Amino acid sequence: MIEYSTTVRVRYSETDKMSIAHHANYLLWMELGRTEMLRNAGLSYKKMEDMGYSLPVCEVTCRYIKPALYDDIIEITVSIEELKKRTIKMRCEIYRENDKTLLAGGSTIHPCIHIKSGRISTFPEEILVILNKSIEK
Amino acid sequence: MIEYSTTVRVRYSETDKMSIAHHANYLLWMELGRTEMLRNAGLSYKKMEDMGYSLPVCEVTCRYIKPALYDDIIEITVSIEELKKRTIKMRCEIYRENDKTLLAGGSTIHPCIHIKSGRISTFPEEILVILNKSIEK
Amino acid sequence: MIEYSTTVRVRYSETDKMSIAHHANYLLWMELGRTEMLRNAGLSYKKMEDMGYSLPVCEVTCRYIKPALYDDIIEITVSIEELKKRTIKMRCEIYRENDKTLLAGGSTIHPCIHIKSGRISTFPEEILVILNKSIEK
Amino acid sequence: MIEYSTTVRVRYSETDKMSIAHHANYLLWMELGRTEMLRNAGLSYKKMEDMGYSLPVCEVTCRYIKPALYDDIIEITVSIEELKKRTIKMRCEIYRENDKTLLAGGSTIHPCIHIKSGRISTFPEEILVILNKSIEK
Repeated sequence: MIEYSTTVRVRYSETDKMSIAHHANYLLWMELGRTEMLRNAGLSYKKMEDMGYSLPVCEVTCRYIKPALYDDIIEITVSIEELKKRTIKMRCEIYRENDKTLLAGGSTIHPCIHIKSGRISTFPEEILVILNKSIEK
Repeated sequence: MIEYSTTVRVRYSETDKMSIAHHANYLLWMELGRTEMLRNAGLSYKKMEDMGYSLPVCEVTCRYIKPALYDDIIEITVSIEELKKRTIKMRCEIYRENDKTLLAGGSTIHPCIHIKSGRISTFPEEILVILNKSIEK
Repeated sequence: MIEYSTTVRVRYSETDKMSIAHHANYLLWMELGRTEMLRNAGLSYKKMEDMGYSLPVCEVTCRYIKPALYDDIIEITVSIEELKKRTIKMRCEIYRENDKTLLAGGSTIHPCIHIKSGRISTFPEEILVILNKSIEK
Repeated sequence: MIEYSTTVRVRYSETDKMSIAHHANYLLWMELGRTEMLRNAGLSYKKMEDMGYSLPVCEVTCRYIKPALYDDIIEITVSIEELKKRTIKMRCEIYRENDKTLLAGGSTIHPCIHIKSGRISTFPEEILVILNKSIEK
């Protein structure tokens, strides 16, 4: 299983009056991590949409352990937890980069959607190959 | 000229570590105000898009006077400042509702876009009538 | 157990290029629902913070069933699922208001934090009374 | 005058149902550009807040020329347009990185706020030196 890591800085607009990053932003960061993981595997999400398929989120869980603070560089680590014919489950951990403190961990489940019909579909072969390589490495 | 007012509460997620609403949210509130102003005039923006026209923002200015705070009810007052054949300029003031303190004021300019062609268009008669009524009253 | 419902309209800025509300917004709506539920119970979250206590999210789960669309009025229904000495679990369902379609359901867990010390605390009596009333009714 | 450039990718969550980046995000990107410009000058905004001073936005203008699209890498170029004793005006241009198309341009004005008192202040010498260097180079 590959873990792919991306880093990003916490923006001012992502903080709230508790002086920590608002919890909803972690979902944006998880999405960022998945996107870069797929890009690294050779499949940008944009290209996937252009091919006619999307991966909306149908379930998310996130546990918040330590707060991310303004200007922190966070490391988003993503891996494929489970790949089925029509759905994929991705695992994500978010660390503060400088001291590798675990800030949050969660997962998302995504059906493969055929955009034109709006229906759940099996992953097309071309995409499946790339996703499988990301697991087996 | 009509001024149309909408109220909304400042969300926790809209605050930042200065304990005030982050300045980018004012653009969302101005948009909310314009939407409700149009709806009140008899033209929901959704319906306008369904008719094939959109009003993207091509220019925005905003002056921030006093901060909006968490849980404040703010009053968003919108009026049409200038209506031309192909563009509309809308004026917006944002007040704290309980004491009518002016928090911010700004304006946005919007071309009328024919969605299918992506081109700037003159306002269709049906829409123009409604917009004109919002000025003349 | 009381269920408390709030309604809110899906904003243009909350949509994404799939033409549906982006999944992270559901967390903002769940927060909105909890805030209004507490306010209705007689305890605004702002007042709670002023009393020195906060309820950050330490865990969230959300299942997305049908998409919320631009300009939809959504109904956010919140109830207390479990109240312990130092944590509270809140349940949330999100419906499209006009036809009561269930769009999403989820829950959040919140420790009671004593703001000054930054430590988890037992709920102070004053707050506990109000929360208990919201369960027993 | 120095121009400092930062790049960032347009996030999925930053798009709206027109399939372009929502206009409010440009203010977040302008903020990102200013932050990195200051950091490059030797003054992280976080450090500035720790020193007791902040630079809230009291005025923003932005002209939108071409849309930023999902997954575009955008280049944010920031320079100091005017530095007075108590305020600073910053200029920002946003380009699509791959073909240097100008997407938007704008400016922001910031008073220097002494955080503890909440009052407008002259820039402290230490900060002024750094800002001046960013102009004169």
